[in-house]
Amino acid sequence: APPPVARLEKPGGWSFEPFGRLMIDAGSVDAPASISDPGLGFGNEVRRARIGVQGDIPGGFDYKMELEFTGGAVEITDAILGYEAGDTKLSVGQHNNFQGLEELTSSRFTSFMERAAFTDAFDFQRRVGLSASYGKGMVLLQGGVFTDNIDNLDADNNSWGADARAVVAPKLGNFQLHAGGSVHYRDLNDAQTTVRYRQRPQVHFTDTRFINTGNIGAVSELGYGLELAAINGPLHLTGETFWQQVDRPGALTDPTFFGGYAEVGYFLTPGDSRGYKGNKFDRVKPKNPVGKGGFGAVQVNARYDHLDLSDAGVIGGIQDSFGVSLIWTPSDYTRFMLNYWRNQYRDAAILAGTSADYSVDSFGVRAQVDF
Amino acid sequence: APPPVARLEKPGGWSFEPFGRLMIDAGSVDAPASISDPGLGFGNEVRRARIGVQGDIPGGFDYKMELEFTGGAVEITDAILGYEAGDTKLSVGQHNNFQGLEELTSSRFTSFMERAAFTDAFDFQRRVGLSASYGKGMVLLQGGVFTDNIDNLDADNNSWGADARAVVAPKLGNFQLHAGGSVHYRDLNDAQTTVRYRQRPQVHFTDTRFINTGNIGAVSELGYGLELAAINGPLHLTGETFWQQVDRPGALTDPTFFGGYAEVGYFLTPGDSRGYKGNKFDRVKPKNPVGKGGFGAVQVNARYDHLDLSDAGVIGGIQDSFGVSLIWTPSDYTRFMLNYWRNQYRDAAILAGTSADYSVDSFGVRAQVDF
Amino acid sequence: APPPVARLEKPGGWSFEPFGRLMIDAGSVDAPASISDPGLGFGNEVRRARIGVQGDIPGGFDYKMELEFTGGAVEITDAILGYEAGDTKLSVGQHNNFQGLEELTSSRFTSFMERAAFTDAFDFQRRVGLSASYGKGMVLLQGGVFTDNIDNLDADNNSWGADARAVVAPKLGNFQLHAGGSVHYRDLNDAQTTVRYRQRPQVHFTDTRFINTGNIGAVSELGYGLELAAINGPLHLTGETFWQQVDRPGALTDPTFFGGYAEVGYFLTPGDSRGYKGNKFDRVKPKNPVGKGGFGAVQVNARYDHLDLSDAGVIGGIQDSFGVSLIWTPSDYTRFMLNYWRNQYRDAAILAGTSADYSVDSFGVRAQVDF
Repeated sequence: APPPVARLEKPGGWSFEPFGRLMIDAGSVDAPASISDPGLGFGNEVRRARIGVQGDIPGGFDYKMELEFTGGAVEITDAILGYEAGDTKLSVGQHNNFQGLEELTSSRFTSFMERAAFTDAFDFQRRVGLSASYGKGMVLLQGGVFTDNIDNLDADNNSWGADARAVVAPKLGNFQLHAGGSVHYRDLNDAQTTVRYRQRPQVHFTDTRFINTGNIGAVSELGYGLELAAINGPLHLTGETFWQQVDRPGALTDPTFFGGYAEVGYFLTPGDSRGYKGNKFDRVKPKNPVGKGGFGAVQVNARYDHLDLSDAGVIGGIQDSFGVSLIWTPSDYTRFMLNYWRNQYRDAAILAGTSADYSVDSFGVRAQVDF
Repeated sequence: APPPVARLEKPGGWSFEPFGRLMIDAGSVDAPASISDPGLGFGNEVRRARIGVQGDIPGGFDYKMELEFTGGAVEITDAILGYEAGDTKLSVGQHNNFQGLEELTSSRFTSFMERAAFTDAFDFQRRVGLSASYGKGMVLLQGGVFTDNIDNLDADNNSWGADARAVVAPKLGNFQLHAGGSVHYRDLNDAQTTVRYRQRPQVHFTDTRFINTGNIGAVSELGYGLELAAINGPLHLTGETFWQQVDRPGALTDPTFFGGYAEVGYFLTPGDSRGYKGNKFDRVKPKNPVGKGGFGAVQVNARYDHLDLSDAGVIGGIQDSFGVSLIWTPSDYTRFMLNYWRNQYRDAAILAGTSADYSVDSFGVRAQVDF
Repeated sequence: APPPVARLEKPGGWSFEPFGRLMIDAGSVDAPASISDPGLGFGNEVRRARIGVQGDIPGGFDYKMELEFTGGAVEITDAILGYEAGDTKLSVGQHNNFQGLEELTSSRFTSFMERAAFTDAFDFQRRVGLSASYGKGMVLLQGGVFTDNIDNLDADNNSWGADARAVVAPKLGNFQLHAGGSVHYRDLNDAQTTVRYRQRPQVHFTDTRFINTGNIGAVSELGYGLELAAINGPLHLTGETFWQQVDRPGALTDPTFFGGYAEVGYFLTPGDSRGYKGNKFDRVKPKNPVGKGGFGAVQVNARYDHLDLSDAGVIGGIQDSFGVSLIWTPSDYTRFMLNYWRNQYRDAAILAGTSADYSVDSFGVRAQVDF
């Protein structure tokens, strides 16, 4: 039998590879009984259904396009033309603007069903732009200028931003360290006159956000992020912090909102470890997968996640979430996940009776395949 | 020359196969002249344009995603993560909920341009859920729980249903028999408070429905189906019946609507037969295809289709349709089809002058390719 | 190592090939300061993000489906089932209706970022239909009947049209000549009662159209096109003219609008030439590409483009555009382009102060990859 062919190729360096992912979620959100909201209780959804294509082009170029299909619509996630010369990679098109470790880590490889509360809250998203990335040894430097997401990029949109990030990632034997920082500026220009920061209770199948700044007048955003991670065999530790400062119009005081998380995880199955590649968390490849006499990899994780949307007169609320996850990875491309979260709110945007301080439990399961 | 590669593969059992279909329809709907409706007369459309991907994942898993592109929108048809262990197949994600033989048969392989009138009328569709299928020898048992279609599955939707089906399919020499029954329950919960059953006159390029219950208040639906088919060389017979009972709120009487069809088909070209695989009708592979000195397969079919949407005070109307089809299958992946239908209405939802009892002629042609 | 596999194949003649393109544009539109419009000034967009599939089907058939993803939506460009017998090609489905040389030339291979002003202005687009194409030696004859674009083809749409085109393309040594003419009729029927012709200032990232007929009552359209091109080594010349006559309802005078362009281009890099294949301009394949010790191909082009939307009492305005482009083609599948246009308006639809006669400068850059 001929050897398997995993990608299409033409002589000279042209190639084509398809890829995709499918995540199916279910679970429940239990809030105080005095909150009546049809989005609470049981929920389920196809969280992500994506298909993409990527490949190489003769001369050092490459391309990547990825599409997300959800609820009757389609969104372009990545649409990139790249060029690699030595240690430098240039990218033009829609791509991630170096927001931080967890945002840049694929959703296929995160420790919990949803990323840290601050990532969506502060509107992290891919945008159209031009960037350079320089990586050599343990050092990574990234920077770019961006306009807006394709979906928002109509002819009248003249918003723009600039982003920079630096990472050092020394590896000492089995011990992988990762430390980084980033800074982000975004000028809203005529595209919008307000921002709104809000967040779900750690699961996505609900649309109820207990913390929410509402629309606040804004001219620009300035964000700072710090990130830290360590992997040593079955154990990993990671955490990030992010400050988002909003420049409000005129003489209004500028609030600074804050989010962060700290996480520890451990593999119960011997020989398994969290993947790390390209300065991001990567695929877990079980040492003893299902189908080869093994049971796959089993990992437990615990996380504290904090998001504070109250500052300078804006009362968006504070969410403190304590979560545990159990992840079963039968084989390289499949994953089943169980999440439980206890979310504690202060100054919540939704009142439970007359109280803005209460707790919400979130429970979720996910079935995942990627290819 | 190296042997052709029909799918991408990686060592260990990963694979990727693209597939798709394209159906282009045209025709006309001729109703009594007293009905003035721009949807009548000549019509045409791209009936289905679909692209999908499927493959295997090491460890016994598999995946399937299929997308339908129509009129500026995209819909996910299948989005499935599967697992096969011996005779049992588990599926999670959006898939068909075991509605019956014709609904489960691919639209590429049906005998007429549209499926039986009751299938669309009773809102058969793929939904997100979890199911098991057990098949051994001539027996197939299927069951699952489902929520709703991805497009309708917003955070406030808490509808759910349960479905079960049993089939026996003995094969005696060349004679293939198929007999089955299914039961379907769906609780609308807060997602909807009404149902509406209606149907087109056997062609899809019109949006005129001569029978239509209009919105009727509903709490849940309970459906029962029976199915029967037989293939013997060039000849096949098939038929189904389906009862849809609507639980109306409060003291209202619960109507039961009914649909069914009976069909006979015959291949004029010697050696050809209707495909049957996986307890469904399957691809016709002409014995003497075009391009290999043959003319392909030619089949004629006749069908009586009945749909009664009047019961318990609801007057949706009755449609009795008598149809013939001529199908030319030049090669395994192409098909050209000609349909003529005579539809007789009683208590129609659209009046012809003052009469609710009249006839409508539908004529359609289809060009089809799949890959 | 086994030879590269560029397409999937099954024995007997079935094949599958993916393809796609990505174009990322940025630039600016500078109009007189008295025009206040947020669509002016800097702009950028993902101009085209497309993925398609095509292949052969046993028996002489073939298929092609291409999807365009833009701003949250998806459009089907091509959806074709084809059959080739000798010198004749039959096509059914959505495809181009033989509008003229530049419209039929892929956007990957045009000399400027946007095609001639008349092409979009006169609503050239792919439509669902049935066509035949006969090509032998230097002669090409094409004709078809069409209804409407898939996106507009609802059940009430009964518009239709007929199109025919003839081309002679003699080749004398290195000298390729191309001359053609086409005629186009379209009956709007009940689908629309008006037409509107308008055009952007040679870049697409703005939505400001300085010339615009507004909605004018219409019954049908009749178009005539002439096309001419010549390639001789590094040099090419090309031009087209198109007359669009609108049949207005009742006794209203029927206006004839007119557009055309003339272009000359020259490759500065020795050995390079504009591609020509299938009676259309085709891919530039640099003689000395990047990655093989070369710099790729560099081409300069100049074009005069004219569009007159004023006639018979309709004052849509006149646009005279003078443009230059610089195209760098590093390798077969990549392209970077710089465009500058000077657009002169008479009787413009947008007033600059009180004047309808003024100039607008457009500047654009494009990064492009296809696969």
